[in-house]
Amino acid sequence: MGYVQCNLVILPRPYAFDFLLYCQRNPRACPVLEVTDPGNPEPQRIAPGADLRTDLARYTVWRNGQREDDRPDIGSLWRDDLVAFLIGSGITFDLALERAGVPTDRDRWVLNTTLPTEAAGPFAGPLVVTMRWLTPEQAIIATQVSARFPFNHGAPIHIGDPAAIGADLARPLFGPPVDRVPAGRIAVFWACGVTPQAAAENARPELMIAHAPAHSFITDLLADRFCQP
Amino acid sequence: MGYVQCNLVILPRPYAFDFLLYCQRNPRACPVLEVTDPGNPEPQRIAPGADLRTDLARYTVWRNGQREDDRPDIGSLWRDDLVAFLIGSGITFDLALERAGVPTDRDRWVLNTTLPTEAAGPFAGPLVVTMRWLTPEQAIIATQVSARFPFNHGAPIHIGDPAAIGADLARPLFGPPVDRVPAGRIAVFWACGVTPQAAAENARPELMIAHAPAHSFITDLLADRFCQP
Repeated sequence: MGYVQCNLVILPRPYAFDFLLYCQRNPRACPVLEVTDPGNPEPQRIAPGADLRTDLARYTVWRNGQREDDRPDIGSLWRDDLVAFLIGSGITFDLALERAGVPTDRDRWVLNTTLPTEAAGPFAGPLVVTMRWLTPEQAIIATQVSARFPFNHGAPIHIGDPAAIGADLARPLFGPPVDRVPAGRIAVFWACGVTPQAAAENARPELMIAHAPAHSFITDLLADRFCQP
Repeated sequence: MGYVQCNLVILPRPYAFDFLLYCQRNPRACPVLEVTDPGNPEPQRIAPGADLRTDLARYTVWRNGQREDDRPDIGSLWRDDLVAFLIGSGITFDLALERAGVPTDRDRWVLNTTLPTEAAGPFAGPLVVTMRWLTPEQAIIATQVSARFPFNHGAPIHIGDPAAIGADLARPLFGPPVDRVPAGRIAVFWACGVTPQAAAENARPELMIAHAPAHSFITDLLADRFCQP
């Protein structure tokens, strides 16, 4: 809690421009914190000394869009043409929310929506969101607090009716199925770092590596001090 | 005043990834608002219907790093492999500063510094800044106001002593030479959109086109409503 966390996507160099462009076109969902040079597993700018082949606890691997078994490291898969993208995560501002009185350990889901993202080359797909149920007071505070973290998804993209953005409450990507928003609560939606992972999956690259769900990369950067990559 | 303005850089496709990466690595100086598809002169996302070959009042052209005469349009230079980058401009928040009591029509310079930017491929160079002289009260207000425009350079990168960032007061890129900051004023420095243009010049691409100084691209987007590209 309180450190800048990152989602990870690793792709071969031929996909790098289109994927970076996809991120630029969808900055709420895909705030890029660092792009490594091809073949270099060290994120020299935001986590010098780290090794992206070993320093996440679990990795997910796809070949041509087919998911393989998760792995605890990717040393044997590393190649000279791989480019790693570190993308901001909303978990980065959990401590700031907690300090402001907004609980972060429950009533949280990751959901597909029917909102399209802007495509770039083969990368396309729906916006994935993080939904929280908050009191109206917490919703206002959470909006102000998260707006201070524009490189970790920033302010909400929607507030209120889940149907207005086609949020799929029945089949969450993370969290139990839900029926309706409870009385006295308001649903608040943030763009989620699963969005670029889904877009990269849709592109069916010959090789793609990502952090496994809930096993993102944690930097030594204090979130309170991190205004820009 | 009050509309989102953009600096323009146009490069052939082979330079596009490294230049986009340069912008990602230097987001204060190079907030990318749109990247066009190769050969398409229309910025479909932030200015649909516009034509980047004709809709700026003056263009500057370089071939292999050599500057040619400025042109009023670039229709005859357009090619199927050209990619246009629209980069946020600090002029976007001038109206917001004026409304907050910060004058924007004088005491403003564009200066080289000795701060290096993060290189990407052949793109590298010093950070270029916009300096304003403000009263302490105005400096505090200007910091708060500009922070609300993270995609148009956002908050200042430095405040106070010009020598601390090696700001070259003797040879401004824009504005008359200056000797010292007048009594009662404090110098405030923002990352400037001339930075990526200088980096692109340093790369000496076979062809590069940019807006001519003080002839940037003005969109129909209201700055007050523009939080994200």
